[in-house]
Amino acid sequence: MDVEAVIAGVLAGDRRAVARAISLVEDDDPGLEALSAGIYAQTGRAATVGLTGAPGVGKSTLATELVRAEREADRSVAVLAIDPTSPYTGGALLGDRVRMQEHATDPGVFIRSMATRGHLGGMALAAPEAVRVLDAAGYDEVIVETVGVGQAEVDVAAATDTAIVVLAPGMGDAVQMAKAGILEIADIFVVNKSDRDGAGEVVREIRQMLHLGAARAWDPPILQTSALEHDGVAELRASIAEHRSYLQDSDELRAKRRARLLREVEGLAAARFRVRVAAALADDAALADELEARRIDPYRAAAMLTE
Amino acid sequence: MDVEAVIAGVLAGDRRAVARAISLVEDDDPGLEALSAGIYAQTGRAATVGLTGAPGVGKSTLATELVRAEREADRSVAVLAIDPTSPYTGGALLGDRVRMQEHATDPGVFIRSMATRGHLGGMALAAPEAVRVLDAAGYDEVIVETVGVGQAEVDVAAATDTAIVVLAPGMGDAVQMAKAGILEIADIFVVNKSDRDGAGEVVREIRQMLHLGAARAWDPPILQTSALEHDGVAELRASIAEHRSYLQDSDELRAKRRARLLREVEGLAAARFRVRVAAALADDAALADELEARRIDPYRAAAMLTE
Repeated sequence: MDVEAVIAGVLAGDRRAVARAISLVEDDDPGLEALSAGIYAQTGRAATVGLTGAPGVGKSTLATELVRAEREADRSVAVLAIDPTSPYTGGALLGDRVRMQEHATDPGVFIRSMATRGHLGGMALAAPEAVRVLDAAGYDEVIVETVGVGQAEVDVAAATDTAIVVLAPGMGDAVQMAKAGILEIADIFVVNKSDRDGAGEVVREIRQMLHLGAARAWDPPILQTSALEHDGVAELRASIAEHRSYLQDSDELRAKRRARLLREVEGLAAARFRVRVAAALADDAALADELEARRIDPYRAAAMLTE
Repeated sequence: MDVEAVIAGVLAGDRRAVARAISLVEDDDPGLEALSAGIYAQTGRAATVGLTGAPGVGKSTLATELVRAEREADRSVAVLAIDPTSPYTGGALLGDRVRMQEHATDPGVFIRSMATRGHLGGMALAAPEAVRVLDAAGYDEVIVETVGVGQAEVDVAAATDTAIVVLAPGMGDAVQMAKAGILEIADIFVVNKSDRDGAGEVVREIRQMLHLGAARAWDPPILQTSALEHDGVAELRASIAEHRSYLQDSDELRAKRRARLLREVEGLAAARFRVRVAAALADDAALADELEARRIDPYRAAAMLTE
């Protein structure tokens, strides 16, 4: 399938073309620029939701529940699970997706794990383009799920319209999560596995952290869910809709999207520049030798290469 | 204190100068290039150790124990705790450091939390220069502790000579950790809180994950510690020393350091280029408008800005 066929297929909502397009993003394929140019005009309609939180809090189960709720409302939905590639884990990730199998044969649902180490700049730069592919393919809602809890994951979550931070009792307390910078990007907090001991304590900790921060125009609600028991999912869905109305009514949606578009362009330009610098360093063993011998320091070398 | 005084102070091992130098790194101060140039020739002697793992596994307690062990062996040691800045957490971080107070008055110990959002490129780029400051100041060992578990944290850990991945029973299983890409960068695994139920299970899971990966010249040991009970710390210290001997004997230390130096320079050059792109975008509202109107796509805009 050549890039033109991929573009036409994505715009027609063809699943094979969508899968192929996301592979182009994963691999930073030379066709990626053409893909981006070909679909960009048809994006911007999908509602995007980020799901982030520590490993083990139940993000995948929650995503499955959200998919079911969207389908009951007759909205199509795509789930993009972003997994940094690891030689150890190819299999584990697929296994995880099995939990979503109840949706596997539903044509209104598209589920895809994306490895992002092939993409320049990693997941933070790969995610927005993959989301645009799903948006252009016509999915009403795109759910982006990240795996770790760190700076890159925070960036990915912040690149969606509504960022949901998921916590669970016994998985490290809110203070610890805050250290990873994750609390400040949350539009909605979810304390999942709320049937377990300690859920109320997690809610109180989040509330306390929020009180320490500056007042914000949107006050992030703290919801409790038990995804395995299907509890609280309707409330979460309502909360997402409410946040979306707030964004639209306040014009913050437009401002947020514009700001993150500019950040993405900066990141893409820097990543492309980095490739050139790496090539220059590979060509210039003398500079590398000077660095290693501590005759030129890294900041000076970087300045030389930027000129 | 001007930059020249900071440099002289760092090289003389003056604590105030070291603290000031790390602040320059945090803030991406204009004096940073002079600092880097001034200290670089005096670096490369310190042994660097990374401590990474999910929030709550006990990394700070373990770091405190390692500091005590180094001091008993009469080696000076610096601990750099890397905390992404959050408006909510300034206080929490300081509170965390209180645990290390037993070392607060020891002139052979330097402890510092570093916020890295001020530095271009975030923690992955700020950490190496801060480590070099501590190295140039004469600390025999520099321990770098990260807070989250994600792509950026993995990069920081991989930028030390010996990367220790800390896990604990009940804090998300090894499969989950592997998804964050953290297992493959480990030179040593530590299962902390090993007095708790499930420690043996975590050890088995790690062993299983390692068996799935390709064979490596260095087979990462899996140690059990109970930092609060002071158990297993001597073994951990011996294991770090053994890994260091391996690196030196195999010439991998030199190769590893050269490779990460080149990666750092690439990252610094890209970060500097990014600042220029951001300025160009801020100056050129027309381009931003075209992007927002979906007439120019992000990849095309990035290519235009890179030319």
